[in-house]
Amino acid sequence: MTEGPSDGIYGLWPFVNSSMGHGGPHRRLFWCVALLSAQMTLWYFAAIIVYRLPWTWQCSKLMMKFIHAGLNLLAFIFAVISLVAVFDFHNGAKIPNLYSLHSWLGLVVVILYGMQLVLGVGMFLIPVTPVSWRAALMPVHVYSGLLLFTSIIAVALMGITEKLIFGLNNPKYKDLPPEAIFVNILGVFLVVFGALVLWIVTRPSWKRPSEQTLHILHTSGGGEDSTKVGPAMSQLSVGTDAEASEDVRRRNNRLDDQTN
Amino acid sequence: MTEGPSDGIYGLWPFVNSSMGHGGPHRRLFWCVALLSAQMTLWYFAAIIVYRLPWTWQCSKLMMKFIHAGLNLLAFIFAVISLVAVFDFHNGAKIPNLYSLHSWLGLVVVILYGMQLVLGVGMFLIPVTPVSWRAALMPVHVYSGLLLFTSIIAVALMGITEKLIFGLNNPKYKDLPPEAIFVNILGVFLVVFGALVLWIVTRPSWKRPSEQTLHILHTSGGGEDSTKVGPAMSQLSVGTDAEASEDVRRRNNRLDDQTN
Repeated sequence: MTEGPSDGIYGLWPFVNSSMGHGGPHRRLFWCVALLSAQMTLWYFAAIIVYRLPWTWQCSKLMMKFIHAGLNLLAFIFAVISLVAVFDFHNGAKIPNLYSLHSWLGLVVVILYGMQLVLGVGMFLIPVTPVSWRAALMPVHVYSGLLLFTSIIAVALMGITEKLIFGLNNPKYKDLPPEAIFVNILGVFLVVFGALVLWIVTRPSWKRPSEQTLHILHTSGGGEDSTKVGPAMSQLSVGTDAEASEDVRRRNNRLDDQTN
Repeated sequence: MTEGPSDGIYGLWPFVNSSMGHGGPHRRLFWCVALLSAQMTLWYFAAIIVYRLPWTWQCSKLMMKFIHAGLNLLAFIFAVISLVAVFDFHNGAKIPNLYSLHSWLGLVVVILYGMQLVLGVGMFLIPVTPVSWRAALMPVHVYSGLLLFTSIIAVALMGITEKLIFGLNNPKYKDLPPEAIFVNILGVFLVVFGALVLWIVTRPSWKRPSEQTLHILHTSGGGEDSTKVGPAMSQLSVGTDAEASEDVRRRNNRLDDQTN
């Protein structure tokens, strides 16, 4: 059973449907799922990073929440399609489903991602949810979002490893043909990409300021030239509100982590 | 070339040197490296978590730094031994070195870990380093430490995947024999363990208080019963020093993340 199905979801991807010699079906599956996973990862990246772009700080909080939820929904849809593609391939090629650690973790991550999405909409988009609930859940929401993002990269690295072993037969993976080098380099870039995203989202200075801080900036002259909102934020050193001034000071206080 | 070397580093691990049928050498390598990697991960975990234990907050900062550096050195030694074990196995079994993504990322992680160790000792333990340098490097040191910890887990998951595929031949990995289920569950536990560690170290309330805050607590009555230092910290609401009071307020301010 070395040949995969001739129909199924691969009809959606004619450019990966050509014959590729030994390991063809595995390669087709690999590139099909790799493209879907890349879509998922990129939309998820966009959803995470959207609060960290200074030019979005002039947009309303509610609009940003809708964009964040929409991008996450798009990423989740791609995650589900890639799951369907894998099950479809396995069933057609009579390969058992859900035997590998990659498949276990991948399925758990997609299920948790769906729960994160439903819970996120329920807690942060539906207006009736009490503010105290939102405040209590926000650290968990941020942590689990970043944990799922990291887990997706780890699961993708395991998938890359599996498919390079199964898909390359002549020459084998251990002979390091150009395709193996290429995919290895893709894997390294994936890790570097994940590291950069985690760096950006964990910097206090990149965080979207509180609504009060933004209000102060607007009412103290920033409103006339709203393009200055982003860069001006880190320069702001005065505030009439306790929380707002704390927020700004935290941005400027690079010695904060020294107490670690 | 299905049998591995009969001597080498395996002499150190007689209990994994017995015959295990098909895939024996791969299984031996797997359990040998798994034990070494587990040691590395556990000592690294101890090094990361040591600042988050309230009962250590009464110890001096310098002593904690030495403990942190010592535990990291121990973890690094285990990382190097596990690398030696892998190269030793590959050379003996005539398997090429450094072809897989797992090996590329694993080697990079161990090299970066060594650099992190050297840079950490140079910046935070040698007394002549200017405080401004320490303050500037601390966020990078914390971030890269946690990134390396996460990467080690990802590399371990890839190693688990590789070895289950290569090591299990009759029955194969896809037939999901008990050994595969057992190792898959180990992999799931590894992810849960990593998630818990990342949760603990990213909670502001678990962070070691600044020296000034600890000094205030000691001079305002806490000194007589030093066992109260940990639990009392989150209750402290007054301070004579600006930085100290900010430090305490940050601990109590659970609404901080609401602005995200």
